[in-house]
Amino acid sequence: MTDERTTIETHIRTSIERHLLLPDAGRVVVAVSGGADSLCLLGVLDALCGPGRYWSRVDLLVAHLNHGLRGDIARADAEWVAACAAELGLPCVVGARDVAAQARHSRRGIEDAARRARYAFLRELAHAQGATRICVGHTRDDQAETLILRWLRGSALTGMTGMRPLNGDIARPLLDLRRTQTQRYCALRGWTPRTDASNADRRYRRNRIRHELLPTLERFNPNLVNTLTRNAQLLADDDAYLEELAADAWNQLAHLASSEEVLLDAAQLAGLPLALRRRVLRRAAYLLQGDEPALEARHIALLELLIAAPTPAHAVH
Amino acid sequence: MTDERTTIETHIRTSIERHLLLPDAGRVVVAVSGGADSLCLLGVLDALCGPGRYWSRVDLLVAHLNHGLRGDIARADAEWVAACAAELGLPCVVGARDVAAQARHSRRGIEDAARRARYAFLRELAHAQGATRICVGHTRDDQAETLILRWLRGSALTGMTGMRPLNGDIARPLLDLRRTQTQRYCALRGWTPRTDASNADRRYRRNRIRHELLPTLERFNPNLVNTLTRNAQLLADDDAYLEELAADAWNQLAHLASSEEVLLDAAQLAGLPLALRRRVLRRAAYLLQGDEPALEARHIALLELLIAAPTPAHAVH
Repeated sequence: MTDERTTIETHIRTSIERHLLLPDAGRVVVAVSGGADSLCLLGVLDALCGPGRYWSRVDLLVAHLNHGLRGDIARADAEWVAACAAELGLPCVVGARDVAAQARHSRRGIEDAARRARYAFLRELAHAQGATRICVGHTRDDQAETLILRWLRGSALTGMTGMRPLNGDIARPLLDLRRTQTQRYCALRGWTPRTDASNADRRYRRNRIRHELLPTLERFNPNLVNTLTRNAQLLADDDAYLEELAADAWNQLAHLASSEEVLLDAAQLAGLPLALRRRVLRRAAYLLQGDEPALEARHIALLELLIAAPTPAHAVH
Repeated sequence: MTDERTTIETHIRTSIERHLLLPDAGRVVVAVSGGADSLCLLGVLDALCGPGRYWSRVDLLVAHLNHGLRGDIARADAEWVAACAAELGLPCVVGARDVAAQARHSRRGIEDAARRARYAFLRELAHAQGATRICVGHTRDDQAETLILRWLRGSALTGMTGMRPLNGDIARPLLDLRRTQTQRYCALRGWTPRTDASNADRRYRRNRIRHELLPTLERFNPNLVNTLTRNAQLLADDDAYLEELAADAWNQLAHLASSEEVLLDAAQLAGLPLALRRRVLRRAAYLLQGDEPALEARHIALLELLIAAPTPAHAVH
């Protein structure tokens, strides 16, 4: 039993080192819902971080958000996570938000609003506590689901590379682990993870991907999760190189005039290969619209028409 | 009725011109199974080619292959296609192959063997008749099915760009047309296409994609065929630029020593960005293995290990 536990911990340690997911020293926030994935994340990070351990100068702070969507059960989850943290001798902060109200107010879906509330909470907490990293428990299965969602939506190459192991302050140490392995790890440590009933709710798009679509797709390729995630890595290398070339082009022809105006040299832009021109446009859109969803194929097609148009429209607002 | 017919013909004429699918003059082979897609292809090309028409110096040769898989019905299909060609005043060649025997002999699946036999027949015929192009009736729906098949299999970026409108001598004038439009075109001309019962045979992978998987996927995105094919175009532009850069790199560092040996400058190869290095490797593999299926993600991963290996293995055999 111990051997199997060590194997999983070593596997994750290797991922953390390869992708530089942890700082040499300092505080790290660990997001824990109480499900198998985040519980495994907590257990492994606890085994690796702290005095006398591999990352001896890293200390962990457990964070849990009650989304206010599941009443007493959610309160019980929060208490349970706090008790877990206490058992490991780790500090824990439990936050609460009214996600349903935020969803109504911002006219977003519940899933989207929950995700935004969760990351806002984690970032506020990290900032307040001087933490430089936030670790979240996404697995290779979550990655495959994300890739399927983006493929269905028609994401361009960048979207098809999936979630990155490190994206700004968000670190994903389990991205190379299967969900069955997180369940196994919890079992090996004698932990019974909480099950979130809303994970089975078919009104949520991701749950329908997980429970309906993925099993159908796996009848065509039983190894689909691995196929998609491995392929996403190849695509990520293509994308990284194109992004690098686009960054060079951007430095040549773009000027951020204000937070609401990007000036692009139209002649230089028209002279770029399509692949780079679109990336420059995406970057301009990203700078102007910030955190909104990325441009999709149909948006890019409209921008192409705009560039091909004879009017001298230099500025994108 | 005539207006709608003209709209479809004009749409296809535009595709042909944009992608340079037809020569200015000379013979063109049209592959006709007798189904709605190829019948529409034949009807539209006949309306556009020949004396007094848009491509007045292009003459058509109808080609039909009996795959020897469906006995009397297949013979009736062949006679029916020949009668159609005669009605349009076009020459027609009907070939016959024993695909089942070829599949057994080459240990390939029936679908794969049928495709190979069909293209071999079309190429032999084109060569014998001095035709420079072979037109086939793939529609946007076929393209979407191809994209789904390749996505399930984990094709790298190049595979995810789908079938090209023009690939060597093979031209696909209907690639921007939906299958419902080819059916409509046949109806407008008062033609009843032949239905191939094997198109409903769920033992064939493509049929299972068409009849089982696609309807499931369309519950998640009702516009999926258009989403996938439009996105493939964006990916094709990314891929084309990377291929162009890889071709430059190839000219710098590769030397085709013989039909069985490619010499690669290992130091230059190792210095390339991953995206280009993999493309150079693919190109070497393609030159050496010819017509075999493209390298998949797992093959590339193995080659990467080979390059990272300390032994000075300059030659790929």
